[in-house]
Amino acid sequence: MRPIEEVEVIHVEHAYGRVLAEDAISRIDIPPCDRSAVDGFALRAEDVVGASNTSPALLKFVGAVDPGEKPSISLKPGEAVEVQTGSEIPPGANAVVMKEYTVVENAIVKVYKPVAAGENVCKKGEEIRKGAIIHRKETLLDHRRIASLAHAGIRSVVVYREPNVLIVPLGEELLEPGSPYVEGKIYDCNSYALFALVESYGGKPTLHPIVAPEKNRIVEVVQQNLRHYDTILFTGSTAVGKSDILPETLQEMGAKVLFHGLRTKPAKPTGAFELEGKIVFALPGFPVSALIACEYLVCPVLAWLSHKQFELKGTYVEGFLTRTVSSAYGRRDFVRAVVRKQNGTYLVDPIVHEGASRIVTFSKVNGILEVPEEVESIPKNSKVVVRVLGAFDDEASSDES
Amino acid sequence: MRPIEEVEVIHVEHAYGRVLAEDAISRIDIPPCDRSAVDGFALRAEDVVGASNTSPALLKFVGAVDPGEKPSISLKPGEAVEVQTGSEIPPGANAVVMKEYTVVENAIVKVYKPVAAGENVCKKGEEIRKGAIIHRKETLLDHRRIASLAHAGIRSVVVYREPNVLIVPLGEELLEPGSPYVEGKIYDCNSYALFALVESYGGKPTLHPIVAPEKNRIVEVVQQNLRHYDTILFTGSTAVGKSDILPETLQEMGAKVLFHGLRTKPAKPTGAFELEGKIVFALPGFPVSALIACEYLVCPVLAWLSHKQFELKGTYVEGFLTRTVSSAYGRRDFVRAVVRKQNGTYLVDPIVHEGASRIVTFSKVNGILEVPEEVESIPKNSKVVVRVLGAFDDEASSDES
Repeated sequence: MRPIEEVEVIHVEHAYGRVLAEDAISRIDIPPCDRSAVDGFALRAEDVVGASNTSPALLKFVGAVDPGEKPSISLKPGEAVEVQTGSEIPPGANAVVMKEYTVVENAIVKVYKPVAAGENVCKKGEEIRKGAIIHRKETLLDHRRIASLAHAGIRSVVVYREPNVLIVPLGEELLEPGSPYVEGKIYDCNSYALFALVESYGGKPTLHPIVAPEKNRIVEVVQQNLRHYDTILFTGSTAVGKSDILPETLQEMGAKVLFHGLRTKPAKPTGAFELEGKIVFALPGFPVSALIACEYLVCPVLAWLSHKQFELKGTYVEGFLTRTVSSAYGRRDFVRAVVRKQNGTYLVDPIVHEGASRIVTFSKVNGILEVPEEVESIPKNSKVVVRVLGAFDDEASSDES
Repeated sequence: MRPIEEVEVIHVEHAYGRVLAEDAISRIDIPPCDRSAVDGFALRAEDVVGASNTSPALLKFVGAVDPGEKPSISLKPGEAVEVQTGSEIPPGANAVVMKEYTVVENAIVKVYKPVAAGENVCKKGEEIRKGAIIHRKETLLDHRRIASLAHAGIRSVVVYREPNVLIVPLGEELLEPGSPYVEGKIYDCNSYALFALVESYGGKPTLHPIVAPEKNRIVEVVQQNLRHYDTILFTGSTAVGKSDILPETLQEMGAKVLFHGLRTKPAKPTGAFELEGKIVFALPGFPVSALIACEYLVCPVLAWLSHKQFELKGTYVEGFLTRTVSSAYGRRDFVRAVVRKQNGTYLVDPIVHEGASRIVTFSKVNGILEVPEEVESIPKNSKVVVRVLGAFDDEASSDES
């Protein structure tokens, strides 16, 4: 497994969040000519030396150059040409005086301030030269970089394609949401949430229909799909229970165990397997576990595949813990929490008794507090850094803890 | 102008970042039945009182219930039924003992630990009741909320539609990137960057071809498009120059000036006009100005239209200023800066002499330092809070300042 080498050509306006797969070369000088940085008059600096409020320099008004227009006038000593911001400087001129310092009367331009040679002029190629690299291969594009590419004449860019991710819900007990309820079953939620999560981190997800946790079905799904995807995420059937046959089946197919079982809470039964150069992830069935495992483990892999640095969404704030949090030595806990502001400080309410099946509660909190492996407990009132997942909106509540 | 009331129905997996336009009601109890939180044996707590390592309780093994299966067995005193995580608790049982504390021999389950009634059982409807509101109208959806909606049986959600934004590049001097270069012209970059920026903040942009800054053309574009879009962004031709006729034309069409001219640097010539209940923005032609004005002014309006709280992208870090920054009293400056880490602290190199046309430079810095209206200068070595726009990658450099 290695970062994606396949590229695609897309229009710059669709390239936000994409990574250049080739150096982008400027098609022109930027600016493409010497041009005015202000509205005013192009002139020769030597003609306005010593100009002042009481003794203006007097120049002959000989015409105007609009932005986008090729100047037809050539400036001679003692002459001035009206220009706008972006107008090309006519030959013979070497500076621009701002409109504010001038008065025009009977084709005479009175200039009340001297300017230095080059003043208010952007020189041709000052920002970048024709043929120079404007953004290098591996650059992550945003709106500013899209602007500079377009400005350099580039409409289409060569970027790495996004990683294709197949999401496979595994379980006898699963029903598709929207279908009639069947006693004893539960509605699959992991695959829809994983779809959204993968997409939000720049992957291209595909939903597979629900698969029964049977060896031949798993083999079939892997054999039919592995070559078409960069990675497969199975969710469900990963623990050491009776129907938890996914890791076993993958190994029988020749997969190498990268890991199976994490020292984390939740998401302990997560596994990753290497098969035919691809990674197949076995995500837990409990929704909170599946989402934490995907965001903290799978999404970084997707970023790596995409030539990007990984960054968790959300922000980090410092706050005070309102209850003691217990963990276990050697285990990393992801404690769901409600982060709220009180009198200018943040308070962090940990949801202490909280099963990994409790997706409704997880969807209403707004924070995740990581307890590192070497910490066994964090006492009440400690200062902690907590990841805030969304806005501090009304939905964030601890009343269900 | 008011927040968008029109809604659309979309599948939950596509609802990341969208806002519910109706309360979402759970179709089922969650959990849908009393179910086991662990792998183990369902039993009656009263049958294992006093069980210990030396004196296990002995129960009769009477069968198993798989997850998703409706139990066919009813448990009688002295009996145990094997269950997995998620299995429905069979009638008669009131607790589950974890597999780890049991040994099965000859259809006898030896239980080495007592359990309390209700232990390891998730009660039906514990998280949410059928018919209850799972997420309220106005809730911003993320992957966790998508999971809880799907888990409640909901595949399709009613969300507000996204704001439609028409982007109109205005200027004689503009060329479409990708087309052959014509002397004296510049390649339009604003509209492509605005497209990407608007989309990254949840708007639905449409690109209009380049329009000549002529009154009749502007009237035509507004008349033909205003009813189809929530807002129009013109870029270019906003200042008080000769061809800057956009504000004039809009007012002649009956538009009310919301503002024209900002006490900011860059983006001073920005304007906003109300026409037929819509806002028409006049963004500057200089790319840095246009992008700053759009992100700091237009995008908050898009958020408001979308029923969302606005949040600027990026993160904020505290760092030390390496050069003095000068501003003007009463003006808000957005100073481009390079933020870099040195020996564990952040250094902020402001790009001091920097025109608003310098999009290439802007695309290579990674920070924006806001200087508020009441501050005239920030001395070298001051501690400042700076917005970091992207990763600290190789492209961020101050060598072009």
